[in-house]
Amino acid sequence: MRPNCLKEMCQRQEAAVNGWLGIPSSYAAEVMGYQGFDAVTVDMQHGMIGFDQAIAMLQALSATPALPLARVSCNHPALVMQLLDAGAYGIICPMISSALEAEFFVSACRYPPQGTRSFGPARGMLYGGPDYFQGANQAILTLAMIETRAGLDALDAILAVEGLDGIFIGPNDLALALGKAPSSEPDDEEVRQAIAHICERTRASGKIPGIFCSSGEAAAQRMAEGFLLVTPGHDVGMLSQAARHAVQAARSQSASRQGSGVGY
Amino acid sequence: MRPNCLKEMCQRQEAAVNGWLGIPSSYAAEVMGYQGFDAVTVDMQHGMIGFDQAIAMLQALSATPALPLARVSCNHPALVMQLLDAGAYGIICPMISSALEAEFFVSACRYPPQGTRSFGPARGMLYGGPDYFQGANQAILTLAMIETRAGLDALDAILAVEGLDGIFIGPNDLALALGKAPSSEPDDEEVRQAIAHICERTRASGKIPGIFCSSGEAAAQRMAEGFLLVTPGHDVGMLSQAARHAVQAARSQSASRQGSGVGY
Amino acid sequence: MRPNCLKEMCQRQEAAVNGWLGIPSSYAAEVMGYQGFDAVTVDMQHGMIGFDQAIAMLQALSATPALPLARVSCNHPALVMQLLDAGAYGIICPMISSALEAEFFVSACRYPPQGTRSFGPARGMLYGGPDYFQGANQAILTLAMIETRAGLDALDAILAVEGLDGIFIGPNDLALALGKAPSSEPDDEEVRQAIAHICERTRASGKIPGIFCSSGEAAAQRMAEGFLLVTPGHDVGMLSQAARHAVQAARSQSASRQGSGVGY
Amino acid sequence: MRPNCLKEMCQRQEAAVNGWLGIPSSYAAEVMGYQGFDAVTVDMQHGMIGFDQAIAMLQALSATPALPLARVSCNHPALVMQLLDAGAYGIICPMISSALEAEFFVSACRYPPQGTRSFGPARGMLYGGPDYFQGANQAILTLAMIETRAGLDALDAILAVEGLDGIFIGPNDLALALGKAPSSEPDDEEVRQAIAHICERTRASGKIPGIFCSSGEAAAQRMAEGFLLVTPGHDVGMLSQAARHAVQAARSQSASRQGSGVGY
Amino acid sequence: MRPNCLKEMCQRQEAAVNGWLGIPSSYAAEVMGYQGFDAVTVDMQHGMIGFDQAIAMLQALSATPALPLARVSCNHPALVMQLLDAGAYGIICPMISSALEAEFFVSACRYPPQGTRSFGPARGMLYGGPDYFQGANQAILTLAMIETRAGLDALDAILAVEGLDGIFIGPNDLALALGKAPSSEPDDEEVRQAIAHICERTRASGKIPGIFCSSGEAAAQRMAEGFLLVTPGHDVGMLSQAARHAVQAARSQSASRQGSGVGY
Amino acid sequence: MRPNCLKEMCQRQEAAVNGWLGIPSSYAAEVMGYQGFDAVTVDMQHGMIGFDQAIAMLQALSATPALPLARVSCNHPALVMQLLDAGAYGIICPMISSALEAEFFVSACRYPPQGTRSFGPARGMLYGGPDYFQGANQAILTLAMIETRAGLDALDAILAVEGLDGIFIGPNDLALALGKAPSSEPDDEEVRQAIAHICERTRASGKIPGIFCSSGEAAAQRMAEGFLLVTPGHDVGMLSQAARHAVQAARSQSASRQGSGVGY
Repeated sequence: MRPNCLKEMCQRQEAAVNGWLGIPSSYAAEVMGYQGFDAVTVDMQHGMIGFDQAIAMLQALSATPALPLARVSCNHPALVMQLLDAGAYGIICPMISSALEAEFFVSACRYPPQGTRSFGPARGMLYGGPDYFQGANQAILTLAMIETRAGLDALDAILAVEGLDGIFIGPNDLALALGKAPSSEPDDEEVRQAIAHICERTRASGKIPGIFCSSGEAAAQRMAEGFLLVTPGHDVGMLSQAARHAVQAARSQSASRQGSGVGY
Repeated sequence: MRPNCLKEMCQRQEAAVNGWLGIPSSYAAEVMGYQGFDAVTVDMQHGMIGFDQAIAMLQALSATPALPLARVSCNHPALVMQLLDAGAYGIICPMISSALEAEFFVSACRYPPQGTRSFGPARGMLYGGPDYFQGANQAILTLAMIETRAGLDALDAILAVEGLDGIFIGPNDLALALGKAPSSEPDDEEVRQAIAHICERTRASGKIPGIFCSSGEAAAQRMAEGFLLVTPGHDVGMLSQAARHAVQAARSQSASRQGSGVGY
Repeated sequence: MRPNCLKEMCQRQEAAVNGWLGIPSSYAAEVMGYQGFDAVTVDMQHGMIGFDQAIAMLQALSATPALPLARVSCNHPALVMQLLDAGAYGIICPMISSALEAEFFVSACRYPPQGTRSFGPARGMLYGGPDYFQGANQAILTLAMIETRAGLDALDAILAVEGLDGIFIGPNDLALALGKAPSSEPDDEEVRQAIAHICERTRASGKIPGIFCSSGEAAAQRMAEGFLLVTPGHDVGMLSQAARHAVQAARSQSASRQGSGVGY
Repeated sequence: MRPNCLKEMCQRQEAAVNGWLGIPSSYAAEVMGYQGFDAVTVDMQHGMIGFDQAIAMLQALSATPALPLARVSCNHPALVMQLLDAGAYGIICPMISSALEAEFFVSACRYPPQGTRSFGPARGMLYGGPDYFQGANQAILTLAMIETRAGLDALDAILAVEGLDGIFIGPNDLALALGKAPSSEPDDEEVRQAIAHICERTRASGKIPGIFCSSGEAAAQRMAEGFLLVTPGHDVGMLSQAARHAVQAARSQSASRQGSGVGY
Repeated sequence: MRPNCLKEMCQRQEAAVNGWLGIPSSYAAEVMGYQGFDAVTVDMQHGMIGFDQAIAMLQALSATPALPLARVSCNHPALVMQLLDAGAYGIICPMISSALEAEFFVSACRYPPQGTRSFGPARGMLYGGPDYFQGANQAILTLAMIETRAGLDALDAILAVEGLDGIFIGPNDLALALGKAPSSEPDDEEVRQAIAHICERTRASGKIPGIFCSSGEAAAQRMAEGFLLVTPGHDVGMLSQAARHAVQAARSQSASRQGSGVGY
Repeated sequence: MRPNCLKEMCQRQEAAVNGWLGIPSSYAAEVMGYQGFDAVTVDMQHGMIGFDQAIAMLQALSATPALPLARVSCNHPALVMQLLDAGAYGIICPMISSALEAEFFVSACRYPPQGTRSFGPARGMLYGGPDYFQGANQAILTLAMIETRAGLDALDAILAVEGLDGIFIGPNDLALALGKAPSSEPDDEEVRQAIAHICERTRASGKIPGIFCSSGEAAAQRMAEGFLLVTPGHDVGMLSQAARHAVQAARSQSASRQGSGVGY
């Protein structure tokens, strides 16, 4: 079976850079897959992406050097199963608040006897190889998001769940959970400490700490703090910022009107 | 009928900034439409976009401040008609090499007696208003691309075609036509002079000179040279450059491996 | 943030007219959005619409004067979240049978601390504006459907749920729940009284009573009865009735064969 | 091979009623196919429909009592071939202005030696049956649109083209061609006479006169005038009129605001 | 209402042959529907199919002699409802492990008072007929998959659930559940006995035993064993095996290189 | 730039095996790409495939060992350009009847100065590499179909066209052109001689003779005859034959009814 290069990188303590897709387009996915990312995540939670589009996006990523991951919209075994069958090599699951929820999530990612995943790895076998069943329980990456106060409180119990490979932090929701304004790069001291705490405990448990960041520069900072999986922004943010910059630069020498970036 | 604000800007000698779409996604189109562009063009020539996708993209643009334009894949009246019926408020037509071709193109954009457009403005009426038929011949923008040597030679005759609103330059193809390597911002003197010549003659004829550029900075330069419609890059280029930059920035403090932007 | 004009109308005690979409087409959605409705609902429960199509439909509605709403297929937070992120300005949730279920539904529509909605308003921000987060908890409309006997029994408790904006009645399911044949305009006395009771209690609580109707005439009658949100039929019914009428009218002067409207 | 019931009806001098599709949705197509039409036409000229959508629409119609037809965007053999391969049982071709153009069109609909259609009837065989090749040249209906002055002048020559089954009139474009305002039901005397003339000459030649109408009532009138194929409006018109009527009826008893049908 | 011919066959103790779809294409579905199957199942569990695609596939099947069925991804009433509304005439539900789960599943397939299905049979009425509501509870086929040890233990209780029409076995998951390697045609004695036991008990209860097989030959064997519903492989397996065979046959006389079937 | 392995094989006089796609599905394309084919062709002529689907299919093929090719619906430069931009590494063009048509086709595949292809290789660069422009004129394979009597007569002149890489025979259309019934494996002596003649002359000119076959066995025979590119059937034929066989095998031991493969 095709090895999970991302898992191997992290096991070597080498930080990996992950792309993020919210645009429902296999072409945008393929473009992203060629830009140097170690992995690219199809976001089924906040991305504008249904399952019919996700399949084509995972296919497109399969032709690129980037490993295909997916974030499910919620902790439901059928959704996890469908994305794994479609060839995702790792799942990010939002809103994990207890060890039980983490076990439930991991179980959906593993064939019996380790878990309860149903057999039928349609695209998984095309991408992973004919021995997919034999290798999948080992190869598939499982990342739980800690973004509630309960999840924070249960961190060590969650990290103790066998088969869970790491934690992924969504700073916006974590800040909200702590009663603060949402922020991709929180200034708030309590949120900062929570993030640092998750990173430290996750590393201490031998697992992968990951986080969503708002830029490459912020991602570099997170890597310096010890994170092993960083996401330097998402496709929509990158495209809109680049476009707004281009409009403003085009108008910079023109006094006739003001550049005014709108929205998002 | 909804006025063509782009046409009005250019008539006031005010330069307009145009976005460019090659990703077949109505969501990417909508995101682009909110970034401050005066117009956004759905590229049916080199974009990865068929008619089924183009319709949804034109719909998405209709909710944004940007005027929807389209580039057809070739000078064919049925393709022009379909995009106008779908609500495009202007058409960019590639590879116009003679006054006859320009007339043929313009004719496809105009209802009788000025032209030969067939009646049935399905989405056009939703976007333009119930009096679409009365105003369309006046409102729809027609831009011919000069990108062959024959087109260059016939420039003044093309500019004399009634109903043609302007010229749009594709520097890559124009360079190729002159026997040079393709380049978005050509250094070659002959190509530079050809571009300047087209701009000057177009302005002299009271029409709109437009051009594709590789960045906002390059677009500002073209505006300074007298162009009234500039396109500071396309969505795929913006997204891939922004992503590659983010990857490199994320890895900048990491000695463990090299950022290597790939492709496009 | 863009205000919720529908909520404002209802607060002024002004009845609103709502369109209903079951055809999975952004073009049909846009056509409907221009016909004078105050709002139009994308029906993910009984409509033939998956999430990939719903996104384009919400985009198309955004260009029209009608406010985009959605009905979820069931009371699941991930589905509610995805439609809100996609720009719906209100959610209709079927089969609410208790105050707890209503609280669960409302919680999914509200950011912390009022609720549990996860942050990431992709299209929401494009349609609502950059201050979406600040205004969303106030702007998003929440309507619970009462269509079980348990829901009817728990009506006052449901109406007491904070953050719930109103009740929406599906007469067919309500009739079924009361042991009667399904009917859009029930004759049955018990069903009629139940509908009147829901309307009266909902108004008494200062919330919005809404209902699905089978025609504009029936909707007018419901408005006279005190309903503040009426839906005069759905797209499929309107299209099929109009088409059947046209066929019959065409054949009315022809003795050669009988018009025979089929299906639906 | 499945017989062409529409052709047989017309040969019996029995007028047929044809539906018209501009909404790119297989569900809308199927709904229309069940409303009593003898045939339903997928409009690739002014409809918002590309080939990927047209296939699913022709599939959906295949399950209904209505015979699937298609209108091509222009007189191009490749487009005709693709729609026939996709299972259309007849083609309406716009803008036929000479006998040569009519021969070119008919040739694209017929296998050698009668024509030049390329072999490969993918869906055609599923819908038509395994003996599709043997029967197709006889079964496929060919209708040429007369909507230019040249076409009007060449009418008798066009009608003499072997293999052409009939004429279909688009009143809007015909009016435009004669220098009048477009109108689905023209009042102008010259246009009325042209329509009557086409009908009479077509019947005299033993071929099928067809026409687009704005309503069932207008279609009945055309049938009384001798037309054998009438189209009582299109899906978008039917849907928007029905919706606008429903909105107005809903508001009819409400003094608080005015119903205002917008667009199309 | 259109009768459920599959249910009738099985009631006559006549074994039925069922096709299986994992390719998200209405054209592939239609092709399969014409190959002699009594029914064809759209697999939403392990197939690469989301709801938007499933609708078009069910439409395409409606034009063929095969009865349309669907397998849901999990035992969730909203998913069952959507596929029934979309015209599926039977539902296969995976992972039924108790009588309660079977009751929950059956309840989702039946209108009150027998069940809890919500009213709104959009496409169901087109395919089934205007009296769909009256006949649906009788016509819709309900098949529960037994593929866990708990399900095996609860077999008789599950078979006693009123309204459940039969059992469908997935040998791969059943083998996994019993601690064996997944296999479509299990050699393992315990698995074989479990399959035989399920078949025998299901027949004894007067219900339909069904099973997934890896080929037509294996399906014939299952029919000989008493199964009344057999699925001789799926579309992806059939296509890949046929293609691999064709490649190998093409290369069989060529010494220059080896045919090497890859994947799946 | 990624080399064209198919061209290299043929230049080594090694026969290549080509798959053929008519199902509009990126998943079916990917499945086919893993079955051992040297190349796989997306058929835009007789396949049920529009451009929006073709893009995703070419993407899916890019992840497999098979080289992506495409057949255009007709000899039109814009269609050729779009498929090359979308990453096809070779084009099969139907109905080439003269050297001029072959030159026109080849010109559309080559950048200036060798041809007239417009610059903008969107996906081409992702699949081919950043030096796509430099290598494309050399790498892209051009195959002309000879399937008319005129084409047969002009064979040597067509073979003399510089930049044309080979000939591809469609036996069905060739038989039709010679006044015979269409047949994938013609028995007719004149057609057989024409096929042998094309093969012999093409090889003599140092170019690639290719042909469509009805099975792997037939393809092996064609390879023995000297063809260097063989297509052992298409996806729809493979799927329908395999399914029909499975149904018949399942019913072989059952006397209750007859298997009856239908259609295609």
